[in-house]
Amino acid sequence: MSKMSTISLITDFGFRDNFVGVIKAVILKINPDVNIVDISHGVKPQDIQEAAFLLKSSFRYFPYQTVHLVVVDPGVGSDRKKILLKTKNYFFIGPDNGVFAPALADEPPLEIIEITNQRYFLKPTSSTFHGRDIFAPVAAYLTRILDKKRVLHGQGKISNFGKRVKSLKDLRLPEARVKSLNLTGEIIYIDHFGNLVSNIDKDTLDNFIKNKKYKICIKNKTINKLSHGYSEGSHLQPFALVDSFNYLEIAINGGSASNYLGVDKGTKINIIRSI
Amino acid sequence: MSKMSTISLITDFGFRDNFVGVIKAVILKINPDVNIVDISHGVKPQDIQEAAFLLKSSFRYFPYQTVHLVVVDPGVGSDRKKILLKTKNYFFIGPDNGVFAPALADEPPLEIIEITNQRYFLKPTSSTFHGRDIFAPVAAYLTRILDKKRVLHGQGKISNFGKRVKSLKDLRLPEARVKSLNLTGEIIYIDHFGNLVSNIDKDTLDNFIKNKKYKICIKNKTINKLSHGYSEGSHLQPFALVDSFNYLEIAINGGSASNYLGVDKGTKINIIRSI
Amino acid sequence: MSKMSTISLITDFGFRDNFVGVIKAVILKINPDVNIVDISHGVKPQDIQEAAFLLKSSFRYFPYQTVHLVVVDPGVGSDRKKILLKTKNYFFIGPDNGVFAPALADEPPLEIIEITNQRYFLKPTSSTFHGRDIFAPVAAYLTRILDKKRVLHGQGKISNFGKRVKSLKDLRLPEARVKSLNLTGEIIYIDHFGNLVSNIDKDTLDNFIKNKKYKICIKNKTINKLSHGYSEGSHLQPFALVDSFNYLEIAINGGSASNYLGVDKGTKINIIRSI
Repeated sequence: MSKMSTISLITDFGFRDNFVGVIKAVILKINPDVNIVDISHGVKPQDIQEAAFLLKSSFRYFPYQTVHLVVVDPGVGSDRKKILLKTKNYFFIGPDNGVFAPALADEPPLEIIEITNQRYFLKPTSSTFHGRDIFAPVAAYLTRILDKKRVLHGQGKISNFGKRVKSLKDLRLPEARVKSLNLTGEIIYIDHFGNLVSNIDKDTLDNFIKNKKYKICIKNKTINKLSHGYSEGSHLQPFALVDSFNYLEIAINGGSASNYLGVDKGTKINIIRSI
Repeated sequence: MSKMSTISLITDFGFRDNFVGVIKAVILKINPDVNIVDISHGVKPQDIQEAAFLLKSSFRYFPYQTVHLVVVDPGVGSDRKKILLKTKNYFFIGPDNGVFAPALADEPPLEIIEITNQRYFLKPTSSTFHGRDIFAPVAAYLTRILDKKRVLHGQGKISNFGKRVKSLKDLRLPEARVKSLNLTGEIIYIDHFGNLVSNIDKDTLDNFIKNKKYKICIKNKTINKLSHGYSEGSHLQPFALVDSFNYLEIAINGGSASNYLGVDKGTKINIIRSI
Repeated sequence: MSKMSTISLITDFGFRDNFVGVIKAVILKINPDVNIVDISHGVKPQDIQEAAFLLKSSFRYFPYQTVHLVVVDPGVGSDRKKILLKTKNYFFIGPDNGVFAPALADEPPLEIIEITNQRYFLKPTSSTFHGRDIFAPVAAYLTRILDKKRVLHGQGKISNFGKRVKSLKDLRLPEARVKSLNLTGEIIYIDHFGNLVSNIDKDTLDNFIKNKKYKICIKNKTINKLSHGYSEGSHLQPFALVDSFNYLEIAINGGSASNYLGVDKGTKINIIRSI
C-alpha cells in the first residue's frame, strides 16, 4: 500500500527535546503509512499568532486531506477545548485557541468537533502533553480512516472523535488600515534571513496604490518602488517587494533587514500615496 | 509493500552539518521502506547522560520492534564495543558507553551482540564516523530482516551481526535519595522552554509525601504545592508539577525557569516533609 | 507500492520558517511515495561554497538515482538559469550558480537541461521562491518518471523539462597548493563540534608527506602527527586527523577547536615537510 495521508506539524517545541520525536512515534505506532511533514517547531514559545501566520501561509500547499496538527498550547491542562475540524480540502487538529482562525478565513470549516472520545487517547493521558496523548493519536486514527476511504462520506465519521460544536475561538492577525492617502500596516513576521514580512497583502497594496506614486516608510527609511527579487536592491540598501506568500516585505540584499534597521515584530510600516 | 519498520535517531550531531542526512542516506540505500524518526540531534556534544535520559523517556512510545540508534560517541575509534541488543519490544544499536542502561532498567535486554561482522559495514569503514559506516547499515539490514519476518524467530538472527556478549557498560543517572524527612534530587534535564526536569519520579514523590504537608526548595525559592498544568502558576512565579514523563519539574508560567532562577543541570532540589 | 525514489535537500532556509515544510508539501502533493532527506538547511545564508562542500561530501551516500535539490539562491528572480542535470548515478536540480561543480568533478554530467517547461511549475509562479514553485515540483515529477521506469531510457525523458545546454556555471573550492616543502591549505568548513575541516584531502597529504617527518601549523599551534580518532588527543590539546570524508581536520578532544584556537573559515593551514 502506498503512502496516502499526510500529517503536518506546527509546534513551539523547538529542536533539542524529544517532544516532536515522541509525537511522531505515537503517530507511526497507529499508522506507519503516513507522511509527516514539519512546517515549523521554531514558533516562539506560546506565540499563537506566529503559529497562526505560519499555518495560514502553508496549509494550501499540502496534499488534499492533509491533517494539519498545530500544538502551541499555553492553555494545556486548563479547560480550553480540543478541536478537530474539516474544511473542503483539509483537516485541522489542535487546542482551540484561535490558531486556526486566520487560515479558516480563506477556507471555512464545514464541521467542527470538540474532541472528547477518550477511546482515541493515549493511556495514561497526561494533563500537560496533549500533543502526544490526544492530538497525535486522533490525527493518526483520522488518517487511518482516510486511507480506507480517501473521502469521508457524510459527517458521521469525524464526529466519532467527539461532539459537534458551532464555533471556534477567534484570533485576528493585526490588519492593515487605509486612511485617505495612508496605508498603515505592521511587521508580523521576521524570517530567518531577517526579512520583514508585513500584514499588507498584494491586493490591498494594489488597490491602494492604483498606479499612483508612493513611498514606503519604515523606521527612518523611505523606499520609492517595489523590487521583483532579492538580488535587485543595492548592497545593504533596504528594498521592498511582494513576497512569494503575497505579503509586502522589506529586505536587504546581502544582509538582515531586521538587524540592519533594528526592526522587531509590531513595528509600523506606512505607505503614503500621492493624490 | 507498506512501511513496516522504524528507526529512531538520537545523536549529538546538531543541525547544520551533513552527518544526520548522510546516516539517513545510508539507511535508505539499504532499505527504502523504513520510517526514520529523529528523537533529538541536539544532545550536548558527548553528553552520554543527556542522550540516556532522552532515550529512556522516549523509546516506549515507538512502534513495536523499532530500532533505536543512539550515536553519542566520544570514544569513536577507541576500543569501545559496538552493540546491538534486543529487548521484548525493541532493538537498540550504538556504541557501548552506558547510554542504553537507564532505558534497559525498564525493559531488560534478552540478547546482546557485539557488532563485529564487517559484511554489514559500509566500505571503506572510517575510524571516526561509525554512525554512518557501522551503526546505520547494521540498523538498516536489521530492518530488512524484520520486514521479512516481523518477528525474529530464535536468537540466531541478530547474532549474524556479531558475537553474543553477556554485559554492557553501565551508566546510572543521578538518583534521588530519601533521608528521614528530606527527599533530595537534582535537575537532570532542562528543556527548550527552560523547564527544569528533576530526577524525582512520581512514585518516589508520592511514597515520600504520603499526603503530608511539604515544601519544595530549589535555589532560594520555596514551593508548597503541585500544580496540574503549565497555565496554573501566576505569571513569572515558579511552580512545581509532575510532567508528562512522570518527573517532578519546576516551571514558570510565561517564562524560562532556567533563566529566571539561574538554574543549570546538577542544581539540587530538596523536598522537606512535615512529620 | 514501495517507496522507490529519494529527494535530498540542501538549503539556507534555516529551521524556524515554513519554507522547507512548504517545499516538502509541494513534493508530496505530486508524489506521496518519495523519501525526502534533509542534508542541511543550516547553510549560511547565500553561502554557495558551503552548500557546494556539503553536496560534494554527501551525494555519494544516497540511493541510486536520488534527486539532489540544492536551493541556495541569492540570484532568485534574476536571469540565472534553472538547471536539471543527470550523472551516472544521480540527478541534481537547482539554480545554476556553481553549487554543483565540486560534486560533478567526481561524477561528470551526462546531460544538462535548462528548466524552461512551465507545465511542471506551480502556478502562480513567484519570482522569489523558485525552490517551492519550480525546483520542488520538477524534482517531484522527475521521481514519478523514475518510479515508473527506475531507469531513464534515452535522453528524451529529462529533456521534457527544458532545453539541453552544454555548460554550467563553474565554482572552485579553494585548492591546497604544494610549493617545495610546504603544503598550504585553508579551513573550508567548521562543523557543529567546532572541528576545523581543511581542503587538504588524504591523497594530497599522503603524496606530500611520503613517510617523511612533518609539522602541521595552524595559527600559533604546531602538531607533529596524525591521530586516528577523536578520543586520542589529550584533553583540550589540538590534534590532527584525516576525517571520515577524507579531509585533514584539526580538532580538540572535549572542546571546540574553532573557539579554542580562534579559527574561522579561510584560516590558512600549513604543513612543512622535512627533506
